[in-house]
Amino acid sequence: MVVTTGPEGSAPRRRRGRPGHDQAAILRAAVELFNRKGYDATSMGDLARELGLTKPAIYHHVAGKEQLLGQALDDALDELTAAVAEASRAQEGTTAYERLRAVVRRSVEVLVAHQPTVTLLLRVRGNSEVELAALERRRWIDDRLAELVADAVAEGALRGDVPPALVSRLLFGMVNSLVEWYRPDGAYDTATVADAVTALAFDGLARHETARSN
Amino acid sequence: MVVTTGPEGSAPRRRRGRPGHDQAAILRAAVELFNRKGYDATSMGDLARELGLTKPAIYHHVAGKEQLLGQALDDALDELTAAVAEASRAQEGTTAYERLRAVVRRSVEVLVAHQPTVTLLLRVRGNSEVELAALERRRWIDDRLAELVADAVAEGALRGDVPPALVSRLLFGMVNSLVEWYRPDGAYDTATVADAVTALAFDGLARHETARSN
Repeated sequence: MVVTTGPEGSAPRRRRGRPGHDQAAILRAAVELFNRKGYDATSMGDLARELGLTKPAIYHHVAGKEQLLGQALDDALDELTAAVAEASRAQEGTTAYERLRAVVRRSVEVLVAHQPTVTLLLRVRGNSEVELAALERRRWIDDRLAELVADAVAEGALRGDVPPALVSRLLFGMVNSLVEWYRPDGAYDTATVADAVTALAFDGLARHETARSN
Repeated sequence: MVVTTGPEGSAPRRRRGRPGHDQAAILRAAVELFNRKGYDATSMGDLARELGLTKPAIYHHVAGKEQLLGQALDDALDELTAAVAEASRAQEGTTAYERLRAVVRRSVEVLVAHQPTVTLLLRVRGNSEVELAALERRRWIDDRLAELVADAVAEGALRGDVPPALVSRLLFGMVNSLVEWYRPDGAYDTATVADAVTALAFDGLARHETARSN
């Protein structure tokens, strides 16, 4: 989590430098363009054209394309890291199973609220220092989730016949697929999707007695 | 399914030109490069360099970048379409539920066997005629799968409290996530992954009585 304070110093949260409205708008447009055209195929000239600005006007606000990418990836990673760190902390009176269910729901919420930057994050391939650093942070998240699944298996709450690391891949593969098809103005609100994901993942689609009684 | 015949010409099906070994190698390299750098950011010059060929040598075999993209997308789409068409056909003595389970397994097999071209397919955004045609074919597949889920719900085999279209998205979102992390030389063979996907999706991760007895 990157936390800075502004000039007046009253606890603004998590940002690099001192972005004003203009930088936020540039970042939003950059993320949209990176997702649409691909990061490598997008130039600062494309971004300038998209915003109706000159290139010098953009460079007045941001250092370059890679800085924009880094800020976008941090936006997604900070939220996901916070959710996973919370779930990873063993807490009095909660089981690993409960914390796993909670982090699945929370991940759905983060993906919906930060869809553009998470989309970008999930497409990162490690083609630069910034991308490699993001992959490193993703790996930390994946490792914590796999541990949480293993803990829930050890508790006896989850079936033990599928390797925990594979369960974790599939579970969050399903969650992450949201970025490809979810539309905020579509048929499903966040709670409906979160309910569906947890129902499918934990209780399964087949009509079991237990699934029915939940 | 891409079936062609050689120069003797008995019943060729669906392929552009008459690709020989060279064209197959060019196509493989192109798909690898498109996945690594992004389609838009890859030039025919990049492809030539990758293969250690001159651009004229490549153009001797293929018409251009978009033709390569079309062939790659057809490779993935033909297999997936065949699997889904098979599952969509109501058959004597099989239920929609059985056909849905079968097409989930078959999809895992296709994704593993055609991982590079399916990866490319899943990244298509509709930026050209070829991409729009591929999206149209994907939509046909998605619609059949959603119908199959709805049929299995109507049979009473699947829980009815999650919208079938949403179930279909999540189920195949999980399957499709394979292309991002599956490694053929990794810890899991195709059958292990197919078992894990069907166990998670249909029976759920939580230890239910029914899940245990399966």
